[in-house]
Amino acid sequence: MEIEAMAEKIAAGDRRSLSRAITLVESGRADHRAQAVALLERLVQRNDRAPALRIGLSGTPGVGKSTFIEAFGMMLCGRGLRVAVLAVDPSSARSGGSILGDKTRMEQLSREPNAYIRPSPAQSQLGGVARRSREAVALCEAAGFDVILVETVGVGQSETMVAEMTDLFLLLLAPAGGDELQGVKRGIMEMADMILVNKADGDLRATATRTCADYSGALRLLRKRPQDPDGFPKAMTVSAVEETGLAAAWDEMQALTEWRRETGFFEGRRAEQARYWFREDVRNGLLARLDAPEMQAEMDRLAEEVAGGGTTATAAAEEMLSRLR
Amino acid sequence: MEIEAMAEKIAAGDRRSLSRAITLVESGRADHRAQAVALLERLVQRNDRAPALRIGLSGTPGVGKSTFIEAFGMMLCGRGLRVAVLAVDPSSARSGGSILGDKTRMEQLSREPNAYIRPSPAQSQLGGVARRSREAVALCEAAGFDVILVETVGVGQSETMVAEMTDLFLLLLAPAGGDELQGVKRGIMEMADMILVNKADGDLRATATRTCADYSGALRLLRKRPQDPDGFPKAMTVSAVEETGLAAAWDEMQALTEWRRETGFFEGRRAEQARYWFREDVRNGLLARLDAPEMQAEMDRLAEEVAGGGTTATAAAEEMLSRLR
Repeated sequence: MEIEAMAEKIAAGDRRSLSRAITLVESGRADHRAQAVALLERLVQRNDRAPALRIGLSGTPGVGKSTFIEAFGMMLCGRGLRVAVLAVDPSSARSGGSILGDKTRMEQLSREPNAYIRPSPAQSQLGGVARRSREAVALCEAAGFDVILVETVGVGQSETMVAEMTDLFLLLLAPAGGDELQGVKRGIMEMADMILVNKADGDLRATATRTCADYSGALRLLRKRPQDPDGFPKAMTVSAVEETGLAAAWDEMQALTEWRRETGFFEGRRAEQARYWFREDVRNGLLARLDAPEMQAEMDRLAEEVAGGGTTATAAAEEMLSRLR
Repeated sequence: MEIEAMAEKIAAGDRRSLSRAITLVESGRADHRAQAVALLERLVQRNDRAPALRIGLSGTPGVGKSTFIEAFGMMLCGRGLRVAVLAVDPSSARSGGSILGDKTRMEQLSREPNAYIRPSPAQSQLGGVARRSREAVALCEAAGFDVILVETVGVGQSETMVAEMTDLFLLLLAPAGGDELQGVKRGIMEMADMILVNKADGDLRATATRTCADYSGALRLLRKRPQDPDGFPKAMTVSAVEETGLAAAWDEMQALTEWRRETGFFEGRRAEQARYWFREDVRNGLLARLDAPEMQAEMDRLAEEVAGGGTTATAAAEEMLSRLR
């Protein structure tokens, strides 16, 4: 399809065109890449929509992420909002697996006309995960979705990546007592705008409340960020299966977003993210020179020589750089 | 002085040669750099000493860092250990200031024959802070110091930097109640092997105990790292002015270090740090191409175009990279 026509159809909300466009940005082929760049340029230039709310969501397997997205997404659709769900999964590049490959995990939402669920690609180059994901987010935004949920499993740098392409970052946790509480990845609390303790129902209700109080306490130990009004970041309990706490959580997200819009943090953050990704792309492009097989071999050889005490990092780096010149 | 002779004198523990060598690695002049590289190579090849214990110490102004270093350092010297104190201060490159410039802050320790205090340089290139600091650490180790304390103020990436060049990382805190507790920089708890709450004396004793308990609780919420035996990372109270808790803290540091030596984490971590710095040096060398004034101007221009929505990060990055080729 011609790029111009594709852009028109996406802007008009055509789902098949959106899916084809996401497939295009996911492709590693050079001609596809050129088309994708042109398409995104075209859509950015239109830019006549109010920005969507991009919500990042992290949580380890077992916390009930799919159930949460299903219930939360259905609630939003029930309020007349259009919801897109994307997944960022750097591990799929290695495992060939896909965290959203099975749409049956979100049965209701996948049949909902106002929702769009995009599984993460089964295979892809590791280095391109960030670029591909934020381009898919931009495409969904151009297609007029009001809320874009970006799901990530807690693997490697994926949370940072998702936090840098979304407006709000949620951490979903399961209730846990005592030693089980050690599950939060170091550094993740620094990124969370809200912590939601799921499964606050049945036998787990009391544990969820206690877990929530523990994390509220831990959040208070962290330094206040300029982008947070009083009371944020905050921890709350929800139950995806009983569909409780979801409306209250959404109210808080809206209040936070509203505050950030009024104070300029929302737009400022978007501009900052755009600069960030531009600089990252340039840096990654430069560093890609080290990915050539012969350069990798030389890096590995020198790294082991340094690790073994045979030479210094400084001297070995100078040797490597002279080879790259 | 000839490099060979300088290496001999440093290895023999000559302080003037050590100071001259550190001045050499701090210099930005190309001929000094070449001499520094050769000297470090020479000292690495000797490598006939047991490794020193390198301790990183972070804490914001006002927690009593100098007083702690003075009391802790004097205690170590009293046990027959030789102690070097270095400072990593990326801010000094901008401000021209120096966190250890005034040795009078450590009056006793600066007169102690078994201690060596090196102020951070008043001016330096920002990019070279990490390399210069780890080279100074290597020089002190070659000079036979048993314990090397690397002090940092909590500015920017300085904690990560110090954690990557030391074997233990300590976070020094002051007692605080209620809202004041929000002072810990996000992400720093992930690096700390021990949190020491200072000023556990007089009126502040009870507050210090409570602060310590709060942080013990927060540390338990974080995931256990493989390099930690049971009970670590841990929080303890100390009083630098009353000189209490210091021996207990040192016992814990020794126990942790002993465990890591026996399990191989100590040596493994050193090798990992060497690989890390080698790869960092190569990457920084490549990225230094962006530091040329005309490249910086072009980066800034394109970043603003992207931030303003005029183009995409992807397209702008391609433009920049084609210019760098």
